[in-house]
Amino acid sequence: MPIRYNFEKKINELHKDLIKMGTLIEQSLDDAIQALIKQDVSLAKKVIDKDDEIDNMELRIEKECLLLIVTQQPIATDLRDIASVLKIITDLERIGDHCTDISEYTIRLANEQYIKPLIHIPQMAEAVKSMIKDTIDSCVKKDIDLARSVCQRDDTIDDYFDEIVNELMSLMVEKSSVVKQCTDFLFIVKYLERMGDHATNIAEWIIFTVTGEHI
Amino acid sequence: MPIRYNFEKKINELHKDLIKMGTLIEQSLDDAIQALIKQDVSLAKKVIDKDDEIDNMELRIEKECLLLIVTQQPIATDLRDIASVLKIITDLERIGDHCTDISEYTIRLANEQYIKPLIHIPQMAEAVKSMIKDTIDSCVKKDIDLARSVCQRDDTIDDYFDEIVNELMSLMVEKSSVVKQCTDFLFIVKYLERMGDHATNIAEWIIFTVTGEHI
Repeated sequence: MPIRYNFEKKINELHKDLIKMGTLIEQSLDDAIQALIKQDVSLAKKVIDKDDEIDNMELRIEKECLLLIVTQQPIATDLRDIASVLKIITDLERIGDHCTDISEYTIRLANEQYIKPLIHIPQMAEAVKSMIKDTIDSCVKKDIDLARSVCQRDDTIDDYFDEIVNELMSLMVEKSSVVKQCTDFLFIVKYLERMGDHATNIAEWIIFTVTGEHI
Repeated sequence: MPIRYNFEKKINELHKDLIKMGTLIEQSLDDAIQALIKQDVSLAKKVIDKDDEIDNMELRIEKECLLLIVTQQPIATDLRDIASVLKIITDLERIGDHCTDISEYTIRLANEQYIKPLIHIPQMAEAVKSMIKDTIDSCVKKDIDLARSVCQRDDTIDDYFDEIVNELMSLMVEKSSVVKQCTDFLFIVKYLERMGDHATNIAEWIIFTVTGEHI
């Protein structure tokens, strides 16, 4: 089997694992938000339990990457390609951690009546999820335009963040009895905003890998 | 020159760079907290400007690591050693990012009279800084006991976090006019808590690298 063919086959396998890891994390984010909306403690616990699977997946992909570098001694673009996978899995794993962080707040809040129905938080989470999906796609397809669009969409996440934080502050000013619950929601929204940052990190890294251009 | 000697020389250089990066970040954290306490906008801006230097340092060390893997084809412990450096610099860079995040809040808060003097926040920052210093030391000296003590000390950071958040919530309950400022401080304290998590990640990674034991 020609060496080049073998290498490309292995890179393809790596990309498949990356897609699997991305899908796991999108699912975790979906579950974390559903659990939060429905105050579903058992679903929140499921998200926390699933984090081990994501952590193991990161370790496995990392091992594959290092083995590939050692055995194939890739240079230039190939090496940058593998290095970008190493970066991406670290950010993905952190997104997984934040799904767990949100679920811990869901469990804390389980016996409290929410001040108001959650509307913007699920919308923000949906926007974050589509960023995560597109970063993985842009990595696998080397689609720089898609990666750039992810970076731009981080502004939308920041707008959601500012809007929700302002709303929570107004609620706290109006009624001191809701301070504790609003504080929990402030941190939940902060975790969502961090997830947007992680997706942006990944996208910027992909742009750097393909074009050499630093954002 | 024997190959093994050459390899060890290169690993030593890598460790020296890691110490340099760690020192830069400890300095950034010091400056970020001093700027926050003294409401010193120009120092806060200096912290933000210095983040580029930290980012470039991360890229440079990463390049060295990959080059070392490609050219020396290390196996087993040596490979794990380099892989751990790759992990550590990612967490260090994130700590640097959070120094910038805090400095942005410092600039926002520059024209406001603080509700009360900052006492616990500088103490918490000091505890985080000593964790960062000890993780770097434990990596370079392969000192597992020191790494374990860093993991344990994360509980102290979490205690500080809970204490300060409770205090801020009480202030908001008492007086609705301080909600905005307290919300900013909630996020600042969250960034410090995240830094503790990053230091713990590094320490856990060092323990895994040396002992193969997952925490």
